[in-house]
Amino acid sequence: MKKLNIGLVGYGFMGRTHSNAFLQAPRFFSVPFQPVLKAVCARNADRVKSFAANWGYESIETDWRKLVDRKDIDLIDIASPNDTHADIAVAAARAGKMILCEKPLGRNAAEAEAMVNAVESANVPNTVWYNYRRVPAVVLLKELISQGKLGRVFHYRAQFLQDWTISQDLPQGGEGLWRLDVAVAGSGVTGDLLAHCIDTALWLNGPLADVTAMTETFIKQRKHALTGKVEPVGIDDASAFMGRFQNGSLALFEATRYARGHKALYTLEINGEHASARWDLHDLHRLQWFDHGDEGRLRGWRSVHITDGDHPYMKHWWVPGLQIGYEHTFIHQFADFLLAAESGKGLSPTFREALATDYVTDAVLRSARSGRWETVAVGQQARV
Amino acid sequence: MKKLNIGLVGYGFMGRTHSNAFLQAPRFFSVPFQPVLKAVCARNADRVKSFAANWGYESIETDWRKLVDRKDIDLIDIASPNDTHADIAVAAARAGKMILCEKPLGRNAAEAEAMVNAVESANVPNTVWYNYRRVPAVVLLKELISQGKLGRVFHYRAQFLQDWTISQDLPQGGEGLWRLDVAVAGSGVTGDLLAHCIDTALWLNGPLADVTAMTETFIKQRKHALTGKVEPVGIDDASAFMGRFQNGSLALFEATRYARGHKALYTLEINGEHASARWDLHDLHRLQWFDHGDEGRLRGWRSVHITDGDHPYMKHWWVPGLQIGYEHTFIHQFADFLLAAESGKGLSPTFREALATDYVTDAVLRSARSGRWETVAVGQQARV
Amino acid sequence: MKKLNIGLVGYGFMGRTHSNAFLQAPRFFSVPFQPVLKAVCARNADRVKSFAANWGYESIETDWRKLVDRKDIDLIDIASPNDTHADIAVAAARAGKMILCEKPLGRNAAEAEAMVNAVESANVPNTVWYNYRRVPAVVLLKELISQGKLGRVFHYRAQFLQDWTISQDLPQGGEGLWRLDVAVAGSGVTGDLLAHCIDTALWLNGPLADVTAMTETFIKQRKHALTGKVEPVGIDDASAFMGRFQNGSLALFEATRYARGHKALYTLEINGEHASARWDLHDLHRLQWFDHGDEGRLRGWRSVHITDGDHPYMKHWWVPGLQIGYEHTFIHQFADFLLAAESGKGLSPTFREALATDYVTDAVLRSARSGRWETVAVGQQARV
Amino acid sequence: MKKLNIGLVGYGFMGRTHSNAFLQAPRFFSVPFQPVLKAVCARNADRVKSFAANWGYESIETDWRKLVDRKDIDLIDIASPNDTHADIAVAAARAGKMILCEKPLGRNAAEAEAMVNAVESANVPNTVWYNYRRVPAVVLLKELISQGKLGRVFHYRAQFLQDWTISQDLPQGGEGLWRLDVAVAGSGVTGDLLAHCIDTALWLNGPLADVTAMTETFIKQRKHALTGKVEPVGIDDASAFMGRFQNGSLALFEATRYARGHKALYTLEINGEHASARWDLHDLHRLQWFDHGDEGRLRGWRSVHITDGDHPYMKHWWVPGLQIGYEHTFIHQFADFLLAAESGKGLSPTFREALATDYVTDAVLRSARSGRWETVAVGQQARV
Repeated sequence: MKKLNIGLVGYGFMGRTHSNAFLQAPRFFSVPFQPVLKAVCARNADRVKSFAANWGYESIETDWRKLVDRKDIDLIDIASPNDTHADIAVAAARAGKMILCEKPLGRNAAEAEAMVNAVESANVPNTVWYNYRRVPAVVLLKELISQGKLGRVFHYRAQFLQDWTISQDLPQGGEGLWRLDVAVAGSGVTGDLLAHCIDTALWLNGPLADVTAMTETFIKQRKHALTGKVEPVGIDDASAFMGRFQNGSLALFEATRYARGHKALYTLEINGEHASARWDLHDLHRLQWFDHGDEGRLRGWRSVHITDGDHPYMKHWWVPGLQIGYEHTFIHQFADFLLAAESGKGLSPTFREALATDYVTDAVLRSARSGRWETVAVGQQARV
Repeated sequence: MKKLNIGLVGYGFMGRTHSNAFLQAPRFFSVPFQPVLKAVCARNADRVKSFAANWGYESIETDWRKLVDRKDIDLIDIASPNDTHADIAVAAARAGKMILCEKPLGRNAAEAEAMVNAVESANVPNTVWYNYRRVPAVVLLKELISQGKLGRVFHYRAQFLQDWTISQDLPQGGEGLWRLDVAVAGSGVTGDLLAHCIDTALWLNGPLADVTAMTETFIKQRKHALTGKVEPVGIDDASAFMGRFQNGSLALFEATRYARGHKALYTLEINGEHASARWDLHDLHRLQWFDHGDEGRLRGWRSVHITDGDHPYMKHWWVPGLQIGYEHTFIHQFADFLLAAESGKGLSPTFREALATDYVTDAVLRSARSGRWETVAVGQQARV
Repeated sequence: MKKLNIGLVGYGFMGRTHSNAFLQAPRFFSVPFQPVLKAVCARNADRVKSFAANWGYESIETDWRKLVDRKDIDLIDIASPNDTHADIAVAAARAGKMILCEKPLGRNAAEAEAMVNAVESANVPNTVWYNYRRVPAVVLLKELISQGKLGRVFHYRAQFLQDWTISQDLPQGGEGLWRLDVAVAGSGVTGDLLAHCIDTALWLNGPLADVTAMTETFIKQRKHALTGKVEPVGIDDASAFMGRFQNGSLALFEATRYARGHKALYTLEINGEHASARWDLHDLHRLQWFDHGDEGRLRGWRSVHITDGDHPYMKHWWVPGLQIGYEHTFIHQFADFLLAAESGKGLSPTFREALATDYVTDAVLRSARSGRWETVAVGQQARV
Repeated sequence: MKKLNIGLVGYGFMGRTHSNAFLQAPRFFSVPFQPVLKAVCARNADRVKSFAANWGYESIETDWRKLVDRKDIDLIDIASPNDTHADIAVAAARAGKMILCEKPLGRNAAEAEAMVNAVESANVPNTVWYNYRRVPAVVLLKELISQGKLGRVFHYRAQFLQDWTISQDLPQGGEGLWRLDVAVAGSGVTGDLLAHCIDTALWLNGPLADVTAMTETFIKQRKHALTGKVEPVGIDDASAFMGRFQNGSLALFEATRYARGHKALYTLEINGEHASARWDLHDLHRLQWFDHGDEGRLRGWRSVHITDGDHPYMKHWWVPGLQIGYEHTFIHQFADFLLAAESGKGLSPTFREALATDYVTDAVLRSARSGRWETVAVGQQARV
């Protein structure tokens, strides 16, 4: 089988989920490439060596430019902080590498547009790790919608609720906390959490036309981990918007890191004329389904345990009743990517599709500043 | 409209639920009698006066024999402790009164048989307050079973879990605690809680053939509220049995007052070839329903909110989504009783049907002593 | 005991819930008045007679002005459609009657202000039937907030989701459907459903400062039940807003009648620094509670079954584990009102407090038209 | 790092879960050996080659005796059907190999005793794959019990409910269906499912003293996959028992493959004086916890999402809120085994501890035949 030499940038949380996907995909899926963990790159040589040893990377780099220049690398996986995405992606595209990029694509749509242009000019297979598109329950919902089971859609709601930054003592910036540093992250929960909700929504329910938004930074100043000084906090701690999809349905979205009691509660609900569905990340192996076509007296929300062989991806795993977890979404996406890449294609969400999410998050942040409804940039349509 | 003069014995918890039913039934249901709260009887004159004033009883008695003798009473409702049921019922039957009796019918089947004989000889309309047969969700389940939606039944399980007697300091006997005094109650949770589970089961799934049982008294001695002495506890704190229904399905039943965290958690589940159902008292307005006939990938337990106009009894109450509570089961039973009584009939569960439950509880207690499987007495068939 | 002669206007759904409250409150609560169902008034003489017979009203009227003029009436209860509230209330206040009024107070704040002025000038005890303030779980939450258990509040969310008007065939206006006729109702879900969410929120979390809103009418034309003609639909089918409370927390509210699968799902959630709580109307006897002070490894959302004697109102009902339902909220409010009225006071929410909700719904509708953030009128503060 | 050469017998469902554990454990846990997938053995050469290629086994065997004889194998993992466990284990012990064995240990206690004797004579590290002991939620519960948080235990219940064999058309025996062939499996759900429940129970709640049991075979004849003939079914389709633990608490256990709507619903509940807990396999990442010590009005069942860094095993995985799945239990057990093996010890449950479960299942089957209470063999104590 043809080998696919992978060069990973970043060894943080996402470096681990991606590396696991590289190793696990061939064990559980029939894939057309043999992934090879060729090199991992990060600035701290000691830590990157340790990471490489653990995951079996053959070599290390401490400068991503060198990694990109290596001839023995077929694919660059960008799992480093947001402020590095654009430079690496553009360089990797120019070097003709396939590219996997963590979300959000750019810190803003301008960065993301440059990235899209780069991969489309270079015509390299690419995808963005909006991994929740590969939750079996969410994929099943996509299929149900495509089959027309919902009919006309009236409402789409999504939330991503966390509570891990409530403490005033948490510093901003630095290892593991760069998501709190606006210069690195680009925004707060808007790009980190809301982007997930938006990506899934565009996929399931089509483009958003316009939005009105509200953001808040509850803790105004935090010590910066790198400078040691107490500095203004630039990120948004909470972000919410209302809007209208092009199909006429109403949008209600919210993300926050100040919802005490919720760890990573991404929830979505879609209400159609004939049926409705709900899903959440805390029980990701379940889909809540309401079918108005059921016999009247027995209508109710079904809790479908998505662990059967005829559920998306599940024949590759265990037997009915035995659940999978978070990491499997990355395995699914990588297995799908390999299939697409074999024929030279990118995998949805491609950079272009992920750009659509950046257009929405840009509009959200713009509206939060202006206090007005903002039109989402054209070209945002998900092309699946 | 014809008046129906009611004489109530007992002013405890059940005296309240019944009195409320007498008052509410005509407001929400079209009934063929106008219930009149004619008299209430209990030994403590002061308290019974207060009770009568609160609920609007026209008169009081302190000796149930006088109440039974009164010519202006059409119906005797027995809501006094278990050790009084048989005497009152037999006397009331002889006096030609309609009779409502709290469950269990007797402290044992021998008492209950005498009661059945009395009402059947007198041919007076009668019913036993196994109120959970009038929960809308349970009635719906009965209808589904009758329609054959379950197919062959494999399993029937029921539990009644409470935790209110765990404290060693709780006395036995006396006001409000007579359920802990075996001389008054007849047994512990077997007659108090398990009897409810059995009654519903016989109704939904038919007769039980034989059982093997286990009982336990966790706290062996308690102070007796009347004598003031520490005395051996005669009741069972927990009672469980396995058995076989005549239809070949397996029974697994349990009741306890030592299940920390559960207040009055009566749960039942029935598993058939084509469908299964679950219900519990802590959310009595919901029925859990699983239909194997649903499209494979969308099979799941439906949580049906039993508040629609086409759900049993519910068109008499509010609008969809607005739940009713515990007391309504008594209102339903009384409304149903009035309809039956108009044509001179008793209402299921009649004394005879309730006797079937006493046959089972007798077999349970017998098996718990013998350590052997015990056959349930014949004649136990529910005649619905 | 002193009698309180009640004159009810309206015999619809709310006429029933109120009448039941008048009858039940004295049975379960110690109240300082003996309510007398003196008269019920509605335009259709036959139907009002039938209603009076069922509930035990001593007399009927077909013109509310006559009812208000009657000297033997102490209290006017307004349970008729929204467009009648203001006229009746103003007249009743002038006549010196105590007044109970269904929500929303007026079709808009201007109407409501007139009503507030009338009752305050006349100094008559008054309350508005925002009944969800009397759900035991919600009252418990109010107490927990008052005790400071939440600390600083970050988020307050509420939804009221229904699905009963999705059919195009449903007419607007007429008996039972006046809520779909904007001339009668004043607005759609904004005044009908969102108003409930807002009232509870102002009570629990204090005043709202400003809002940005979105409304939608999914079905643009319906046959009018009275004219028989297909006419434009003037109500909002869905209404959502974001906003900021004066305490700095963020608001996210939504109401709709187009959320397939939800019957009357009023949900609320509040996230504080130290604790969070959730409640919903489909299981109104439960409070979801998360306490960050719990031992770390055992933190989780508690599902508290609000049926214990030390839960608000519950000692008046049954025993732990046995739930109450929707209608009890009205019984509670009426019992509370009688206590307040004894000392000449109104009961929260008084007309003035309910006016605060109209200020918010006015701002919501204004913002939905303007597309801008709108300030909520001053004077909206809940005065509890 | 020292290498550990693994020889696996069996390539079915369990061969996959174990192989995955061998590969994943070193990625996520710090282990003292480097596992090497040296050889996999099964009778079908083509299929075993394919399996070896997929998982990276260096070689294959088609006769387990050859595998056991190989000098380059340090550890034998028995993942073949139940009728092969004893022979392989005894031979492997004699050959001085470390041994991992799928559950149940033997088809009956006699087989299992021989296996225990073999490993104890040879003094080789061993463990049995009762993997549910490595569910983080279950481990947390074990710790809570060990800390005395439950106080005196009153009840322990467990169920394992499935529905996959209801169809009459399912054959018995053969590839993937050997669990339905009594000659191979030893028993039906008793050894397959109930054994899991018993193992966890002995670990959490100590030894069982005696039991009374009931089994049922609903479908009496099935075509045998190997002979092609319709033959009597020898396995039990359902198995239930009541019993008493040595600590005085009551046992209620049930397993079935005829509970329509349940895929692999292993549930357990333990009720103590001070606290109770529930867990189930369909949401294995949650622990339900009730603490009677909580403030009275706020007592409720907590749904604890076991995904925090201070939950057992979870710091090795992702971040709070992100769940793991079924396969992780095997990874945990293998990682733990390596740590134990480093110092020459076996890992709980060792063969001896797993024998205790066989003593209980033997007593269950004996009681189901005798209709009497049966004493569980001595020596069954879990030695943790």
